[in-house]
Amino acid sequence: MIKGIDHVGIAVKSIDEMVSFLENIFGAKEVSRTDYPGLQQISAKVNLNGDTEFELMEATGPDGAIGKFMEKSGGGLHHISIRCDDIKTFSDELEQKGIKVVGKMFDREPKVAFVHPKSAQGLLIEIKEVP
Amino acid sequence: MIKGIDHVGIAVKSIDEMVSFLENIFGAKEVSRTDYPGLQQISAKVNLNGDTEFELMEATGPDGAIGKFMEKSGGGLHHISIRCDDIKTFSDELEQKGIKVVGKMFDREPKVAFVHPKSAQGLLIEIKEVP
Repeated sequence: MIKGIDHVGIAVKSIDEMVSFLENIFGAKEVSRTDYPGLQQISAKVNLNGDTEFELMEATGPDGAIGKFMEKSGGGLHHISIRCDDIKTFSDELEQKGIKVVGKMFDREPKVAFVHPKSAQGLLIEIKEVP
Repeated sequence: MIKGIDHVGIAVKSIDEMVSFLENIFGAKEVSRTDYPGLQQISAKVNLNGDTEFELMEATGPDGAIGKFMEKSGGGLHHISIRCDDIKTFSDELEQKGIKVVGKMFDREPKVAFVHPKSAQGLLIEIKEVP
């Protein structure tokens, strides 16, 4: 079952600068910061007094998804993350409907996967398990 | 005061196809559809069982913001909309902090304005009054 939009992923040149901007201008709060060396990115979750958060993503190398996205586009809105309660079941359901599911990461927390953008008019949709 | 992320704006080739996709795959519900002839766009609000919604935007002509965005990028994630309780006061506060506010539409409902992307690392942020 779907439980709303978890976060909006935004690729930025500098997490520190964007966090400062969002704090100063919108009173946002940084709630966590995580280094993903294997993905060559750092992510910061930022809350704006609501249920849906921002994930600010900064590349730490050129070969990760965010490094490539920055190179191609200069940054900006990157993906939407939608909550589900059981990602394995939901992922199977999507595939039974003919939707291509990629980037499955079910052996870590949070468990996530992605709907291939070709299935969604170019939109990159993450699905995230929030039990 | 800021009250969370109202919606995520997504430019699509076909609202009908994207609504069908989101309904079939995610159980989303279309909650409203509005024609904005002056902006050369149609917008559909879609809810995914949460507080933040999608605004799907389809161009009805080449000269509106969405027509130009489609021409340039092919579509996809376009803007983030953040709720505030008093847009005139908040807009004034932003400008006093040196932030450029553009596209002010205070004589219609909903009242909205935009933070110029140059102030936000390229991100287009709408502010929307939700009293």
